[in-house]
Amino acid sequence: MTTSANDSLLARAIARPETEEKVARRILDAALDQFTTFGLRRSSMDDVARRAGVSRVTVYRRFQTKDGLVEACLLREGSRFFQKLDTAVAALPTMEERVVEGFVVALRYTRAHPLFGGLLRLEPEVVLPYLTVQGGPSLEATCDYLTAHLRRAQQVEGRGDSDPRPVAELMVRVAVSFLLNPSSCIEMEDEDQARAFARRYLAPLLDA
Amino acid sequence: MTTSANDSLLARAIARPETEEKVARRILDAALDQFTTFGLRRSSMDDVARRAGVSRVTVYRRFQTKDGLVEACLLREGSRFFQKLDTAVAALPTMEERVVEGFVVALRYTRAHPLFGGLLRLEPEVVLPYLTVQGGPSLEATCDYLTAHLRRAQQVEGRGDSDPRPVAELMVRVAVSFLLNPSSCIEMEDEDQARAFARRYLAPLLDA
Repeated sequence: MTTSANDSLLARAIARPETEEKVARRILDAALDQFTTFGLRRSSMDDVARRAGVSRVTVYRRFQTKDGLVEACLLREGSRFFQKLDTAVAALPTMEERVVEGFVVALRYTRAHPLFGGLLRLEPEVVLPYLTVQGGPSLEATCDYLTAHLRRAQQVEGRGDSDPRPVAELMVRVAVSFLLNPSSCIEMEDEDQARAFARRYLAPLLDA
Repeated sequence: MTTSANDSLLARAIARPETEEKVARRILDAALDQFTTFGLRRSSMDDVARRAGVSRVTVYRRFQTKDGLVEACLLREGSRFFQKLDTAVAALPTMEERVVEGFVVALRYTRAHPLFGGLLRLEPEVVLPYLTVQGGPSLEATCDYLTAHLRRAQQVEGRGDSDPRPVAELMVRVAVSFLLNPSSCIEMEDEDQARAFARRYLAPLLDA
């Protein structure tokens, strides 16, 4: 093969994933707009295709079902949420403080987010399955995120090397529970009280 | 008033609540049958009235809406669940052991129960709101139950007198979370593992 043929292959190999990624991103952007404006129930794959300016075949090729598209949206908004969390807690010196502040920020962010808290208020019966009985993927992604943080902190803070995943899962489950059902004997409207709750009941799990 | 008039009033006063209670019980029995056989969505107040052998007016007088009837069913099944729990843990000597065993029994019982686990599998989108965004009453009833137990144990076991309600709520939320979303990195299918989980992560909350 000539050098220029090689170059061309390389260029195509580089170019193709970028384009694919761009299309996928455009579809996800359109889906997020569509879902948060009209709700999940009244949104079809056609609506999303139209809004993204692509054919419905293009949408279906990437996201076989509406469920798949919703899950992809949830996962992408999840990543953005993790970035927000990282930024919010980055300057805090201990894992304990990051857990406490992370809990407060997580509740604030997800309650205010148009896809999480927004749709939960708009059409709970449609959104709830994604966060509960079908919530495996989101739960797993969130646990992966927190587990990685806890593992790094174990090393840095010399907290022993027991598997941090169960603790991560437990913390995530408690936060999700407060998102799904805010009515509580524990005052959580006030962020100082949410902070006190996390300090007293969640932070000690780090040493469980 | 003559003695016999007094007697008659007394008899009516005693008889009336019994009758009222009997009718309410018959309606709730019918509702439970109806809901667990056909699901909530396909069940009307008329179906329940027919099954109970009472008029729809009688049903509406006691339970203004279908939502109200569903909630009353949930609360009654909740009471039965508390009785089961009490029986299951009564012989255990410490609150710690009762929390551990109670958690295992709670998961087993609710997952197998036709109204809780059954409808959650049959029509999750209909049942989920009652256990989450509209789950205030069930959560509160369950917290009341566990709080009372924790308070008695505080006295008996000399655990200090801090308000046990937040700990109760936290335990209930974790158990509900595992009912709603069983997919987990924590092996919970196996009851010994559920027990180990409760011993390691929930029991220590008693001293938090």
